[in-house]
Amino acid sequence: MTVYADNAATTKLSDIAFDAMLPLMKDIYGNPSSLHSIGQTAKEELEAARETIANAIGALPKEIYFTSGGSEADNQAIRSAAYIGARKGKKHIISSKFEHHAVLHTLDALKKEGFEITLVDVYADGIVKPEDIENAIKDETCLVTIMTANNEIGTIQPIARIGEICKKKGVLFHTDAVQAVGHIPVNVTDMNVDMLSISAHKFHGPKGAGVLYARKGLILKNIIEGGAQERGKRAGTENVPAIVGMAAAMKYAVEHLEETSKYISAMRDRLIEGLKGIERSRINGSLAHHLPGTLNMCFEGIEGESLLLLLDMKGICASSGSACTSGSLDPSHVLLSIGVPVEIAHGSLRLSLSAYNTMEEMEHIIKSVPEVVTYLRGISPVWEKIKKGENK
Amino acid sequence: MTVYADNAATTKLSDIAFDAMLPLMKDIYGNPSSLHSIGQTAKEELEAARETIANAIGALPKEIYFTSGGSEADNQAIRSAAYIGARKGKKHIISSKFEHHAVLHTLDALKKEGFEITLVDVYADGIVKPEDIENAIKDETCLVTIMTANNEIGTIQPIARIGEICKKKGVLFHTDAVQAVGHIPVNVTDMNVDMLSISAHKFHGPKGAGVLYARKGLILKNIIEGGAQERGKRAGTENVPAIVGMAAAMKYAVEHLEETSKYISAMRDRLIEGLKGIERSRINGSLAHHLPGTLNMCFEGIEGESLLLLLDMKGICASSGSACTSGSLDPSHVLLSIGVPVEIAHGSLRLSLSAYNTMEEMEHIIKSVPEVVTYLRGISPVWEKIKKGENK
Repeated sequence: MTVYADNAATTKLSDIAFDAMLPLMKDIYGNPSSLHSIGQTAKEELEAARETIANAIGALPKEIYFTSGGSEADNQAIRSAAYIGARKGKKHIISSKFEHHAVLHTLDALKKEGFEITLVDVYADGIVKPEDIENAIKDETCLVTIMTANNEIGTIQPIARIGEICKKKGVLFHTDAVQAVGHIPVNVTDMNVDMLSISAHKFHGPKGAGVLYARKGLILKNIIEGGAQERGKRAGTENVPAIVGMAAAMKYAVEHLEETSKYISAMRDRLIEGLKGIERSRINGSLAHHLPGTLNMCFEGIEGESLLLLLDMKGICASSGSACTSGSLDPSHVLLSIGVPVEIAHGSLRLSLSAYNTMEEMEHIIKSVPEVVTYLRGISPVWEKIKKGENK
Repeated sequence: MTVYADNAATTKLSDIAFDAMLPLMKDIYGNPSSLHSIGQTAKEELEAARETIANAIGALPKEIYFTSGGSEADNQAIRSAAYIGARKGKKHIISSKFEHHAVLHTLDALKKEGFEITLVDVYADGIVKPEDIENAIKDETCLVTIMTANNEIGTIQPIARIGEICKKKGVLFHTDAVQAVGHIPVNVTDMNVDMLSISAHKFHGPKGAGVLYARKGLILKNIIEGGAQERGKRAGTENVPAIVGMAAAMKYAVEHLEETSKYISAMRDRLIEGLKGIERSRINGSLAHHLPGTLNMCFEGIEGESLLLLLDMKGICASSGSACTSGSLDPSHVLLSIGVPVEIAHGSLRLSLSAYNTMEEMEHIIKSVPEVVTYLRGISPVWEKIKKGENK
């Protein structure tokens, strides 16, 4: 049995998305900028995809900018707000300690360019406090960027409330909704956001496609200069097959949100029930405001990487946290931000589910994880100390 | 009959590329950064593609950086050299007047940031003179960027010679090889380049994939920050299916370069033979150093856009120049750079062929173009004046 439980890293392309892409890959291969019929047919497909996506998040088609993915969207959103801010002498940006690296590393780069960055705390429940944002805003603040749902622990942030504060204070608000779109309701008006990032491959769309939503009137800054595509704001021939696949996947996800969420969260709840009894384990982040399919746990006395490799041998594909930071020996910045001690953060496991998973697979996980944890603890010198209470 | 003669804008995805992509879209959907088997299998495919591409252009795998396309590669190459230069107080960049907008608009942005930009002339033959580059280089020059082959008129530039000059002077050299790779021999060592941009969809690969080659030791500057993908130089989940498709398409193109080139240039020569007799027409750019499949002509007294629309009604998909600037009312900056008068530049037609075209299709073009030109001139008040010699 192969159990793919790493859907927060990437998802299987759905047949619906693939079937939508197929004619664009095979026949309608024209460049949407070309005036001839093959090009114009591609352009019509592109614009229909834009409309579908706009509708799915309560936006206008002209507020949708296609990018190569979520990271590019995050970069462009932050760079745009920074550029707008800098022209008014406002060079202060607020974010949180547990954002995705596409946000944090862009902020690092801006810091070197003279911006002041404030990262608010996240607390043990994995939720940002709107009042912390409010208190951090000053006259020089040009942007607040807080993710809709965390990619490692799945906690959902009070975006609408933060957006309300930003609106009141006249500060631009961006949210990285890469983990949220297609999984929980996302509406740009309800959420009071000015910019929002989307990645297709997180909801059974293709890799290589993303969206930056930018509210009407907000003038983006290019990070890729060149042709006049995307109203001059993102150069490069549009990846029409991937964009059309993204639209099909998003439409399906949004239309089936409730039933999918119910199906997935039932599996996640079964996992919690089956795994929470493991000695010296913990569930990371509050389950009160949470994505339906993500479960992040820590097991004391083991290394996450060994856990993953042994689970893989049992056919279970999981993660220790963000795929984007794998290979790093540092513990997860997300787990550290919610107060998990360094030595415990090393023993993390992220299980992230999709509609392709089954309850039978959950039983396989529930059987396998304790076996692997027990085995690893059996060969761990640290575990002996922990049990004797010697580990500080 | 539908004749797709706009292959410089984009090409049909080949079955070879599609078949290579299929398993990556259907089954091996893992994130290459994930440690489990589905992720690692994707990573192996990614690295195999990197090796294939490196071999195809005489590079090392670690010199290959995957991007979302040619425009992104151009932007990152130029931004990287500018960053390296600025740190040494060198803020002068040399390019030419007929580069792609992905280059020219990036240079425009750098100009606003305090860089000095020199654009050398191109002359009537559509070829940059190496001595002009040599004369333009000064102590502050940090980069020379000249395209390998022009996207509108198809002229091939003396890249190896320019590279030699840059090497001697200690200046970084980038070439936008988007129109060249897969069409003429491209070898980064023979060409003396430090950086080179590639776009998959120009040689029957998929949209959404490109390459920035950067010589070993050259440290790129990110334009997309985030995860540690591409040795930390390009964040975002890799578009593995597109990258694998690009590698398959490139391998095929390079291995069949000679026969394809012969097949395509025979068709192009037939077009020249059949169209050159049209009254008051001209072929733009020297045919001595030229891509096999591109032909750019001007017909006095007509508008390129009308020409395209009427050709389209006859089933011929062509272009007036770059797809990336369509919709613009300005005449082509490429044609102006080689001295074509503004009023003539408006009547341009680019026919760009591929191995999917046939000689029968060429006959259809040869029959149709004069018909359309004659019709348009018949309703053109300008044409009457030209014929009477009144048009200045």
